[in-house]
Amino acid sequence: MKRSFIREILECIDDTTISFAGGLPDESLFPIKQLQKASNKIVRKRDTWQYSISNGLFDLRDKIASRYTKDGFDTKADNILITTGSQQALYILARYFQNKDITIESPSYIGAMNSFKLNNLDTKSIKIEDDGIDIKCFKKSIQNTKLTYLIADYQNPSSFTYSMSKRKKVANIVKSNDAILIEDSPYTDIYFDKKYKSISSYIPNNSFHLGSFSKTLSPSLRIGYIRASKEHIDELLLIKESIDLHSCGLSQNILNEYLSKPKKLDKHLEVLQDNYKKKMEYFCKCLDNMLPSFKYNKPKGGMFIYGEFKDIDVYELLEKSLKNGVVFVPADEFLTKNKNKKGIRFNYTNSSFEEIKKGITILSTLIHT
Amino acid sequence: MKRSFIREILECIDDTTISFAGGLPDESLFPIKQLQKASNKIVRKRDTWQYSISNGLFDLRDKIASRYTKDGFDTKADNILITTGSQQALYILARYFQNKDITIESPSYIGAMNSFKLNNLDTKSIKIEDDGIDIKCFKKSIQNTKLTYLIADYQNPSSFTYSMSKRKKVANIVKSNDAILIEDSPYTDIYFDKKYKSISSYIPNNSFHLGSFSKTLSPSLRIGYIRASKEHIDELLLIKESIDLHSCGLSQNILNEYLSKPKKLDKHLEVLQDNYKKKMEYFCKCLDNMLPSFKYNKPKGGMFIYGEFKDIDVYELLEKSLKNGVVFVPADEFLTKNKNKKGIRFNYTNSSFEEIKKGITILSTLIHT
Repeated sequence: MKRSFIREILECIDDTTISFAGGLPDESLFPIKQLQKASNKIVRKRDTWQYSISNGLFDLRDKIASRYTKDGFDTKADNILITTGSQQALYILARYFQNKDITIESPSYIGAMNSFKLNNLDTKSIKIEDDGIDIKCFKKSIQNTKLTYLIADYQNPSSFTYSMSKRKKVANIVKSNDAILIEDSPYTDIYFDKKYKSISSYIPNNSFHLGSFSKTLSPSLRIGYIRASKEHIDELLLIKESIDLHSCGLSQNILNEYLSKPKKLDKHLEVLQDNYKKKMEYFCKCLDNMLPSFKYNKPKGGMFIYGEFKDIDVYELLEKSLKNGVVFVPADEFLTKNKNKKGIRFNYTNSSFEEIKKGITILSTLIHT
Repeated sequence: MKRSFIREILECIDDTTISFAGGLPDESLFPIKQLQKASNKIVRKRDTWQYSISNGLFDLRDKIASRYTKDGFDTKADNILITTGSQQALYILARYFQNKDITIESPSYIGAMNSFKLNNLDTKSIKIEDDGIDIKCFKKSIQNTKLTYLIADYQNPSSFTYSMSKRKKVANIVKSNDAILIEDSPYTDIYFDKKYKSISSYIPNNSFHLGSFSKTLSPSLRIGYIRASKEHIDELLLIKESIDLHSCGLSQNILNEYLSKPKKLDKHLEVLQDNYKKKMEYFCKCLDNMLPSFKYNKPKGGMFIYGEFKDIDVYELLEKSLKNGVVFVPADEFLTKNKNKKGIRFNYTNSSFEEIKKGITILSTLIHT
């Protein structure tokens, strides 16, 4: 196994680098004052600093469950397992399903693929299209693997989003094959027009739905969660316990305090959606003006723009752009086969408008001279 | 695999239960004011809330390395990997050495044994004595396994501590067999007379030394670490990254701030050592007076008293004591074979002096009536 290309890039760059690489949220939008207020209240309590239970704080799980139920996906605290970020949720599930075959999208999330590899899962890649996975191929693959990993909302890296019709079709196929869906949803709340119904909500007993506060609130907290049947959660708990006993108690308590007034998060999400949409629009405008040969689909949410050049080797471009203080991730890093040396995933959330313009100008200059 | 007996017990008890079960530190000794001060400073900074690197904060690793060097064990930041508690360190190493044979002590730490089981390591148990592992059996076992997991300081559960002579012998045996030592040291700083030199310090390239702030500062932070050669750390990083990207950034920053004046922790450790020693002495006095048939060795540090009755089934006792609001862990939970229904591990750090007296009085009454 190789190290994550993105994590390696993140360690090479400094404060002056314009990074379109990682999936980092915009630091300037962290609700610092409210997090500070929650922290100040929490750190005074002695039990904040003690061990807590492996499933995660009951009150926090209860609040997360309420958010699901509010969205029409009936959920109780017992259906939630708190994890150390979504990445741990993926690792726990990879360990739970070790040695199995799994149907995934192509391209797919590197962190998930690494966890699958570490746990000896054999991935079967199916092409993802603008409106979701290729249904015919998916149906055929799931009959064999009985297990699938999908990102329905603003997929990483492609930004593709499943249509309602494909969501229902996927749910039906999973259920009729008595299969299991792992639905990864870290970007669900970063939507630009409407919030989609999750595939998991159609098949609550055949699914693991993964959420995270890393993209919306703060990645430093390392708080993600798995929503599943109580029976499944009880089984995952054995693995969770063995991996780190429980996720950071301080983070859980601060998050629980922050969520005590649910509208606080909703208002923050509106700010985020509004800002990220504007950045996305601006990024697209800069691409269209300065790199017109880069073809992509405009995202409906999330953090990424994904596309490709006709005839540019993006690894050569990256080598040059790194020296000029601009980084991005080649699309090939997200593929298990079908080598693609012309594609790029750009992140647009972590740079300012000025940096977006400057970064794309540099790329344009490198390409056109 | 079964769930951790201790974690299950911890979830059954309430605020009124007297718990001699878990390895919980005394809440009343948490340096709340100083942690609060560190937190207040940290939560204002925007980068506290962003993603950070997988190895862990450089400054924090550097401070941990300095503590090693001060103790005569030459260490640099590159030799340290921050983990989500010691438990994650154990899981990462279990994954790294998956499918191998490993020599362990009998009894041994449940959390380590569970991680070994999950990663298909075959454990070979060697009896531990008052001054460390049985050297003859250890030598024979390590020739085959080439890998060992030991807790040299105030072992969990036995509280046994390796003599200097056995430390040197173990180091020599590991080195001469070109084997690897995993030395787990969460209790090292809770000593009652002197601090012992770690076995790892004799064989820096053949060892993984594990430390933690859970027993000394706060388990809620979930910050542990592995000290190893840079080459080893680089390999473990691949697994760490796949398990949770990085440990809680908020915790790491607060801890780094707290450690910025190194004497703060040293003074806190003195308070802890003094208080825990008094509690241990009191616990022993109560045992001697009220349960004279319970035979044990007086601990030189750590958190536990371990011993056994002549002819009492401690599972029957536990069933009754649970109903009367007192819990402990039967010794059998720490064994892979050699069933022991008469042994108990008592924790003495998490109860007040009053609770210790009351709890042992209840056990005595249950036994003697």
